Amino acid sequence: MIEFCGKPLPNRSKYADIAQKKCHRLQGHRGKCSEFPFLKDLSKTHKRVADKIRRDATMTTGAAWKSHDAGPNRILRWVMLLSDEELARYDLFISELRPDVVAKLREKAAPYEDCIDAAIKLTWLVYQMPDAPIPTNEVREYLEAAIGPMYMATTTCEVCRLPISFDMFEEAKRGKALIETCHKNPRIHNADNVSLAHRECNIAQGSKTLDEFYAWIEGILERAGKL
Amino acid sequence: MIEFCGKPLPNRSKYADIAQKKCHRLQGHRGKCSEFPFLKDLSKTHKRVADKIRRDATMTTGAAWKSHDAGPNRILRWVMLLSDEELARYDLFISELRPDVVAKLREKAAPYEDCIDAAIKLTWLVYQMPDAPIPTNEVREYLEAAIGPMYMATTTCEVCRLPISFDMFEEAKRGKALIETCHKNPRIHNADNVSLAHRECNIAQGSKTLDEFYAWIEGILERAGKL
Repeated sequence: MIEFCGKPLPNRSKYADIAQKKCHRLQGHRGKCSEFPFLKDLSKTHKRVADKIRRDATMTTGAAWKSHDAGPNRILRWVMLLSDEELARYDLFISELRPDVVAKLREKAAPYEDCIDAAIKLTWLVYQMPDAPIPTNEVREYLEAAIGPMYMATTTCEVCRLPISFDMFEEAKRGKALIETCHKNPRIHNADNVSLAHRECNIAQGSKTLDEFYAWIEGILERAGKL
Repeated sequence: MIEFCGKPLPNRSKYADIAQKKCHRLQGHRGKCSEFPFLKDLSKTHKRVADKIRRDATMTTGAAWKSHDAGPNRILRWVMLLSDEELARYDLFISELRPDVVAKLREKAAPYEDCIDAAIKLTWLVYQMPDAPIPTNEVREYLEAAIGPMYMATTTCEVCRLPISFDMFEEAKRGKALIETCHKNPRIHNADNVSLAHRECNIAQGSKTLDEFYAWIEGILERAGKL
């Protein structure tokens, strides 16, 4: 892993005191600090993809705090590490949500630095998709130092292992993006565990770990007489 | 298959002129006509299960007509056979819904008699679940005449082929029933094609036919090096 600069960045979020934004450029860098320096290129050429990486890495899936029900609003993953009592100080009243929504939110909690690492891993995977833009030397060297060597067109869906093309970020079916951030273990959000998958593969995996999912579908094929 | 009485029944639905409710007791029966005679026992002892069979057999999944978006409201499957123009006469404005919602609704359309046959098939399956109540002779003979011989505790999840217990109708996880009505081919709603499955199995199958699903997961296991 790399050594980050780590300098605190301005943070106007109401949750600023829970986790301070930090600079993740390399230690001793010149010029301006940046929280997501590895997204610099992508933010210019493919803003939607860069925004998706940042959002998936740092935010839980939706829970509409106002309606007390499942919904479209997301919340920072590290905020969900707080206890019910601490959350109440931010006007987030966990006990007013449906228990299933609470469980889903709590499951997606992760410390700030794990979220940054997850964003780096996702960016590293995205640049290795078929049809992906080529990163600048600066970004590539950063990603390779952080995660490992990169090879063109080697990223596959973590679940079904078929290649997933960068172009699929633009495609949507029934209003839903075809590619999603997935987790080998849905209850752990960090660089090791995070990856990319087809939406339908991610849905099929559900709340199982990837190993549990493979064992499950093997059992299905056996019982259905297909093996 | 059996011969229904077929006598028209009172129908106060605003869609009464699209499909006339009919009596589905056996031709030449004595006593009162009934649209769902095969649900007679279950309606008394397990109303929720009987209601679920009737609802799943005759209604599409949700689309909130008022919000122009996906939502909880269901509509009669045979109503969705009408053209956009015909639907507008019932104040159902298809063009105001999201295209993905329209596609989902249209896919779930089915003629009235196919829905009745699907309800009979589901009832037949339910009575063969482990822990199911025993049907009266009258209901059993009706179901056997309609579909075929019945054996106790032989109903399995159509997808994963594990037994599914009648008690699971009472269970819910994260607010969702554990058992769902499924379709071997999600685009056909009739007795042959309809069955029961675990919710997670039904979700994993998604919009694939069951054969496509088995081929798909076999490919996944092969590529993941698990076969």
